[in-house]
Amino acid sequence: MSVRELVVLGTASQVPTRRRNHNGYFLRWDGDGLLFDPGEGTQRQMIHFGVTATSISDVLITHFHGDHCLGLASLVQRISLDEVPHAVRVHYPASGQVYFDRLRKASIFRDVARLEPLPISAPGTLLETSAWRLEARALDHGPECYGYRLAEPDSWNVDPALCEARGLRGPVLRELKANGCATAPDGSVVQLADVGRVKRGQRFAFVMDTRVCPSCVELARDVDMLVIESTYLHEHVDEAVKNGHLTARQAAEIAREAGVRKLVLTHLSQRYRDTEPFLAEAAAIHPDCVVVEDGDVVPLPPPLRGGEP
Amino acid sequence: MSVRELVVLGTASQVPTRRRNHNGYFLRWDGDGLLFDPGEGTQRQMIHFGVTATSISDVLITHFHGDHCLGLASLVQRISLDEVPHAVRVHYPASGQVYFDRLRKASIFRDVARLEPLPISAPGTLLETSAWRLEARALDHGPECYGYRLAEPDSWNVDPALCEARGLRGPVLRELKANGCATAPDGSVVQLADVGRVKRGQRFAFVMDTRVCPSCVELARDVDMLVIESTYLHEHVDEAVKNGHLTARQAAEIAREAGVRKLVLTHLSQRYRDTEPFLAEAAAIHPDCVVVEDGDVVPLPPPLRGGEP
Repeated sequence: MSVRELVVLGTASQVPTRRRNHNGYFLRWDGDGLLFDPGEGTQRQMIHFGVTATSISDVLITHFHGDHCLGLASLVQRISLDEVPHAVRVHYPASGQVYFDRLRKASIFRDVARLEPLPISAPGTLLETSAWRLEARALDHGPECYGYRLAEPDSWNVDPALCEARGLRGPVLRELKANGCATAPDGSVVQLADVGRVKRGQRFAFVMDTRVCPSCVELARDVDMLVIESTYLHEHVDEAVKNGHLTARQAAEIAREAGVRKLVLTHLSQRYRDTEPFLAEAAAIHPDCVVVEDGDVVPLPPPLRGGEP
Repeated sequence: MSVRELVVLGTASQVPTRRRNHNGYFLRWDGDGLLFDPGEGTQRQMIHFGVTATSISDVLITHFHGDHCLGLASLVQRISLDEVPHAVRVHYPASGQVYFDRLRKASIFRDVARLEPLPISAPGTLLETSAWRLEARALDHGPECYGYRLAEPDSWNVDPALCEARGLRGPVLRELKANGCATAPDGSVVQLADVGRVKRGQRFAFVMDTRVCPSCVELARDVDMLVIESTYLHEHVDEAVKNGHLTARQAAEIAREAGVRKLVLTHLSQRYRDTEPFLAEAAAIHPDCVVVEDGDVVPLPPPLRGGEP
């Protein structure tokens, strides 16, 4: 069975605390594994929470502040040590090339890591696989910073009984699935919508660090899960704006406007001891939200069903 | 009261485990703080175990394998963030300058850190303060690697009653302390040994990573505490030699030959689940040893008393 879930590796902003490691988020998506913003200590958090180097297909760095990238150094060395057989793609802002280069070879090791560096020089679609399309949009933080959106294409589930009733089988059925329409044995033209229903592709967005900006909503539009920073409570909104961050209320407003299903808040400032006010602030605006802790596993909500045929 | 103790921040070799972070050892020595081999995650271990960035006077890196240096990146950024007012000296093998440079500016941060880089290009005395002398000797590991020795100078405690009996006071007493001898009011020449006793300076050595080599014993000669790697049990001595490491038995033999008082074993390979065999192997050879865990605090043994006057 395919598994789609977020494994939360770290949730601190800027500096770690006793309770929270630097950032780190692993999105298990069927056979792929997308590791977002590996801060310092991500290697060890992976051990704590059952994520192997071999399970990583992509590393995605929003920007090159230390809490979002320093873990890359040991991660590369672990990929090498474990002799991960595939090339691991690494997405990051092109202006941070010098930091990528330093972290790539930060100390002495036997380097057999296969990495595919994919610096982002413009927003847009970064990559399309058979399973998903990855998109980046520029955020408003200070240093060049990109948010990410992963979208599975919509597909069709055909109803075997309806197909049978229309005499659709073999090559005709294959043609219907490939082209969206086909001619049935009785000479009638059948559309996919006549015998199937849309299976909406799942979508995921990752938004940090940023002030409120149009990209936030664009990335989050109709996603099943949005992982978003909420460094501050709204009582400190002036500080959030000054430092290029969001408040819990702003994050929830973005999610509501974008039609997000599951809202995941993280990247809390160390000044706050308690997460309850974050949840209260967001829950007043968005119906399904969670403030995550290191080690939390949050499954993607089950796919939405499309219209019946 | 002055405090001299080892705070163990991490004890893993090569890769962290659930139980052991990458290396990290903080030697609190009165007003100074010497941080040895900060591996990844040292910043967070410092938070767990009560070591502040401001308390660090010196960072000492034996060599540039990741488990001994990757924590430098965030450490520098923490020194900067906390605006540590003094310059922090950093000692490291000169051949690793390129790695120092990468870790020094590994990602984007507001850089107000005051560091004094002190690359080691030859073994010998690195630094003499009023409190101690720091020495480095080359070890046998593979990449250039230095072990460290910290030695407090011997001093004299004079006995007030004996001084009074010889009429030693004021300028004459000061002369005696400064020069080691002085002329008493009765015309006799007094040596320090006549009215005082030697207070032996305390000594500390840090030896990793290395095969058995003469420097190990030279560094550890008569120290009050030796922190030394024992990556393997002696049943795997061939692997230890091949990979440039020590076994617990070898570490204890070095300590016995050098006349070490307190032997501290660390840097255990992740292949071993249990520390008991390490302790058993070492304790058969050396009377006072400990295998440390992350978070252990090991006080320096109290100073030895010199000969009575």
